[in-house]
Amino acid sequence: MDENSVDSHSISLLVNNKPGVLIRISLVFARRGYNIDSLVVSPTQNEIYSRMSITASGDRQTLEQIIKQLNKLVDVIHACDHTGEVVVEKELALIKVKCPVECRTEVLQVSEHFKCQTVDITEDTLMLQVTGGTDKLDALHTMLTRYTILEMVRTGKIIMARGVATT
Amino acid sequence: MDENSVDSHSISLLVNNKPGVLIRISLVFARRGYNIDSLVVSPTQNEIYSRMSITASGDRQTLEQIIKQLNKLVDVIHACDHTGEVVVEKELALIKVKCPVECRTEVLQVSEHFKCQTVDITEDTLMLQVTGGTDKLDALHTMLTRYTILEMVRTGKIIMARGVATT
Repeated sequence: MDENSVDSHSISLLVNNKPGVLIRISLVFARRGYNIDSLVVSPTQNEIYSRMSITASGDRQTLEQIIKQLNKLVDVIHACDHTGEVVVEKELALIKVKCPVECRTEVLQVSEHFKCQTVDITEDTLMLQVTGGTDKLDALHTMLTRYTILEMVRTGKIIMARGVATT
Repeated sequence: MDENSVDSHSISLLVNNKPGVLIRISLVFARRGYNIDSLVVSPTQNEIYSRMSITASGDRQTLEQIIKQLNKLVDVIHACDHTGEVVVEKELALIKVKCPVECRTEVLQVSEHFKCQTVDITEDTLMLQVTGGTDKLDALHTMLTRYTILEMVRTGKIIMARGVATT
């Protein structure tokens, strides 16, 4: 693989659950001009730690330096890049579509194909919940652009290693 | 409601998709000693904006000041607190459970009750995917603590207003 090619990387971190940690981590990325596409901070089983899942795009060499630097931060327990590993990557999205009664059947057919759940319905709108990989969500989004998408919120990817290994 | 009571608040922001914005926003919270429980940054339909969903706990008065301050930041299009509003709140989690063949049936029964999807299975482990409100995820977590939870990742809540209104 080209060392300088711009790829999308999935990075996971285990950090101390303390104020200011998020700022220090974002600074490491910002200083090297690395763009964070999505970021998820969430609690873990043990409340003294937080888990972060970051999707960022940029060249591989810079990322390696970023990971090294992250691992040096006092509040980072560990940071690693999962690009190329066998992991489960999932994302959740809520999409609100303008959908008058006459096109409801069409939208529901698309929704069924993508195994969405209908979480809210009004005379004119339909709110769908969908989970899956980024590609699936992008494909659903493309299919729904025919109708008017009023709003879309995505959680960003969370990552977990397959099998017995823990990330 | 007591003005100084500590509640959990759901805040959503629409911000410019620029480096450094995340840092400025986290600083507003950190300066007032407000603890961020979960944070989600994700792309929107229009790539010049990002959407943030933040869950934070603390007193109502401080939060009102934080929201005012966030709305003054150049890169914040709008910030609002959804506490008490009629919104759909959803979260996604992946849970890896140590599960030898002899207790697989038990774990799968729990999984079925919570409408989980099995995303990975090995001789000794089972990875479940679940979506829903925070209460549901907490309840599932409690049920699974009987077995050994090897790993759990949650996305944090995303929020969307019910009906035609956009957040």
